[in-house]
Amino acid sequence: MASTAGQVIRCKAAVAWEAGKPLVMEEVEVAPPQAMEVRIKILFTSLCHTDVFFWEAKGQTPLFPRIFGHEASGIVESVGEGVTELEPGDHVLPVFTGECKECRHCKSVESNMCDLLRINTDRGVMLNDNESRFSINGKPIYHFVGTSTFSEYTVVHVGCVAKINPAAPMDKVCVLSCGISTGLGATLNVAKPKKGQSVAIFGLGAVGLAAAEGARMAGASRIIGVDLNPNRFAEAKKFGVTEFVNPKDHNKPVQEVIAEMTDGGVDRSLECTGNINAMISAFECVHDGWGVAVLVGVPSKDDAFKTHPMNLLNGRTLKGTFFGNYKPRTDLPSVVEKYMNKELDVEKFITHEVPFSEINKAFDYMLQGASLRCIIRMGA
Amino acid sequence: MASTAGQVIRCKAAVAWEAGKPLVMEEVEVAPPQAMEVRIKILFTSLCHTDVFFWEAKGQTPLFPRIFGHEASGIVESVGEGVTELEPGDHVLPVFTGECKECRHCKSVESNMCDLLRINTDRGVMLNDNESRFSINGKPIYHFVGTSTFSEYTVVHVGCVAKINPAAPMDKVCVLSCGISTGLGATLNVAKPKKGQSVAIFGLGAVGLAAAEGARMAGASRIIGVDLNPNRFAEAKKFGVTEFVNPKDHNKPVQEVIAEMTDGGVDRSLECTGNINAMISAFECVHDGWGVAVLVGVPSKDDAFKTHPMNLLNGRTLKGTFFGNYKPRTDLPSVVEKYMNKELDVEKFITHEVPFSEINKAFDYMLQGASLRCIIRMGA
Ligand SMILES: NC(=O)c1ccc[n+]([C@@H]2O[C@H](COP(=O)([O-])OP(=O)(O)OC[C@H]3O[C@@H](n4cnc5c(N)ncnc54)[C@H](O)[C@@H]3O)[C@@H](O)[C@H]2O)c1
Ligand SMILES: NC(=O)c1ccc[n+]([C@@H]2O[C@H](COP(=O)([O-])OP(=O)(O)OC[C@H]3O[C@@H](n4cnc5c(N)ncnc54)[C@H](O)[C@@H]3O)[C@@H](O)[C@H]2O)c1
Ligand SMILES: [Zn+2]
Ligand SMILES: [Zn+2]
Ligand SMILES: [Zn+2]
Ligand SMILES: [Zn+2]
Repeated sequence: MASTAGQVIRCKAAVAWEAGKPLVMEEVEVAPPQAMEVRIKILFTSLCHTDVFFWEAKGQTPLFPRIFGHEASGIVESVGEGVTELEPGDHVLPVFTGECKECRHCKSVESNMCDLLRINTDRGVMLNDNESRFSINGKPIYHFVGTSTFSEYTVVHVGCVAKINPAAPMDKVCVLSCGISTGLGATLNVAKPKKGQSVAIFGLGAVGLAAAEGARMAGASRIIGVDLNPNRFAEAKKFGVTEFVNPKDHNKPVQEVIAEMTDGGVDRSLECTGNINAMISAFECVHDGWGVAVLVGVPSKDDAFKTHPMNLLNGRTLKGTFFGNYKPRTDLPSVVEKYMNKELDVEKFITHEVPFSEINKAFDYMLQGASLRCIIRMGA
Repeated sequence: MASTAGQVIRCKAAVAWEAGKPLVMEEVEVAPPQAMEVRIKILFTSLCHTDVFFWEAKGQTPLFPRIFGHEASGIVESVGEGVTELEPGDHVLPVFTGECKECRHCKSVESNMCDLLRINTDRGVMLNDNESRFSINGKPIYHFVGTSTFSEYTVVHVGCVAKINPAAPMDKVCVLSCGISTGLGATLNVAKPKKGQSVAIFGLGAVGLAAAEGARMAGASRIIGVDLNPNRFAEAKKFGVTEFVNPKDHNKPVQEVIAEMTDGGVDRSLECTGNINAMISAFECVHDGWGVAVLVGVPSKDDAFKTHPMNLLNGRTLKGTFFGNYKPRTDLPSVVEKYMNKELDVEKFITHEVPFSEINKAFDYMLQGASLRCIIRMGA
């Protein structure tokens, strides 16, 4: 590996030239890492909704050509100036949000919203010089959320790289670098259900099912899954979901249905849909006196969360979280350990696998709602 | 005292015959306590906004004639069947919300919203028989929030009576039975600022100033008072408020003013106005990542709390509380102890004092905004 350090690497990458058009396999040039940067050989990557959302580019400023991808596992190829915590050969997960370890957020035990490295979906360049590390024939290709893992090699800020146990199977733990940790952490770190409590999960995609997995791990007595799509219910049973509510089956608000099922409301709820009505229902379905609702889904720009303040006065708590409140460098290695010691089951989230050359199939599976997570095997 | 037990007591009470009309001093008959009830000789009572609000009866179902009053101190005169925790001679504070010790809320460490005895402003009778214990010539006079302390004797459910240290000065601790404990508890039990953190207080009435007192006790570094009335600021300095913002002095939203003063927002905020815009500002002025906002003010029926969900995703928490999350019987005695051991200063809340015969003056002081708390001395 040392032979490539300091040099431009030519490798394959799946480039999005235009919004909504299939990715094109290209040979790209990947520049060496600059100060506080790390160049990573990606081994496995998986597709998350956020990739699809920005690839479709509906309602956002489109930034193309771009290399998407932010759930992945890989090995450090070389490090830039000032990087002391990582060295070539380290097994790592790149993360879409970072941890500089210097700012007020990084120094607070309560926050993972790093001032320097928090997610920025509008930026397509590296912080150090406001340039891209990717190019084709000298023409720059933009980065995505600082990770761009749909490439055999990528360059990432050291603050967005978690060093993990080298014994961890890379084709499994790659899914821990976004959606699964987000849902899991939302339950374990933010909603914090107590043993025996009831939990409602709105949205049974990968994030919601990971939230359910967290509820199961915390010893919840009832896990009520809420989804508009009844196809999600069969799968959700594997994730400890014990009861299902489809809002379409009722002619009253789903929060009332849940209140009736639970003698006044659930103890905790997690909203994992991104839909504003689900956010309001998820809040209003928690029990007064002690109920806690946690928003995880990413809302649209013009959404407004609306409720009567008496719902708060009555002792309900409303929170929200990014990346399940995990600090990427500090906390993600311990999530990998939860998988290694069999506390956390990751395999059941992985429904499909394709070689890198067939990455567009992963988009099809997701758009059809057929997959939870599709692993993309690099170098194949 | 034993001589009156089991008998009807004739005594003086200040009766509200009509909405908004001065109270009239009358001789009333107070029936003996029934099962789980306690008859209390009131020694001191004070006036709170909630009394004035329901006396004005704007926008609520008016219930007259009625005996108002819910902040008070007194001595148990006699107890009804089944009351084992209290006996004649005990020093007590009656409370507008109760603790049955049997329901799910009472059994939860997190809630004080007792299913049986939580505040009910529409009820004017006792739970045991749906009748009033007060009458004049056989005609019933309604109770108010289960306390009706504007009477020399009153009957209260045992779940709404806190037994306190008999050494506590009754003319001071009477104010702890509503507003002061509400503000104090909202800070100490719900917002929980850490030593050195910044706190914003919206509304500098008695409740807000008690919240500021809580922030001072918790070691807050900055306490920013927000009020539309600049006259509140001089007084607030005595309560540890270090800076002031009058929203009227700025041509941008007060949450932006506070964010600029504090490099992104305060660590904690408490809304003690009852105004819906103040509630939204109080939430949006807390720092992302870790900020916690607590709603205390009682909103109007048609108010809607509205914010962009991204304000939550970014790591802010929104809560609300009644009576500062104190359980009346379990926790109020310890608030009295905080005063006894000089952790908590109660005297500075007491700005006026009148004899019972001049109770209408207490209404005038409050309506003019001249008083924080006016003590009403019974038997005078
Ligand atoms: N906060 C974070 O850090 C973070 C990280 C990753 C993903 N997310 C967000 O989490 C959300 C879920 O992600 P995912 O990958 O699981 O998505 P997904 O599309 O696989 O799952 C969402 C599910 O919600 C259901 N749904 C939609 N509207 C609903 C409604 N009104 N009521 C009930 N169910 C409804 C859909 O049928 C679907 O099954 C997305 O909004 C995503 O952007 C947030
Ligand atoms: N949750 C509870 O258990 C509980 C208990 C007691 C009182 N309360 C409520 O607490 C609130 C405060 O009670 P109080 O006795 O201190 O009242 P108060 O009237 O003495 O004080 C309220 C203050 O808020 C200020 N204010 C009003 N609108 C404002 C705005 N938009 N921005 C900034 N300041 C504004 C007023 O000028 C006033 O100084 C009331 O709504 C009361 O009903 C709640
Ligand atoms: Zn940081
Ligand atoms: Zn993702
Ligand atoms: Zn109870
Ligand atoms: Zn009161």
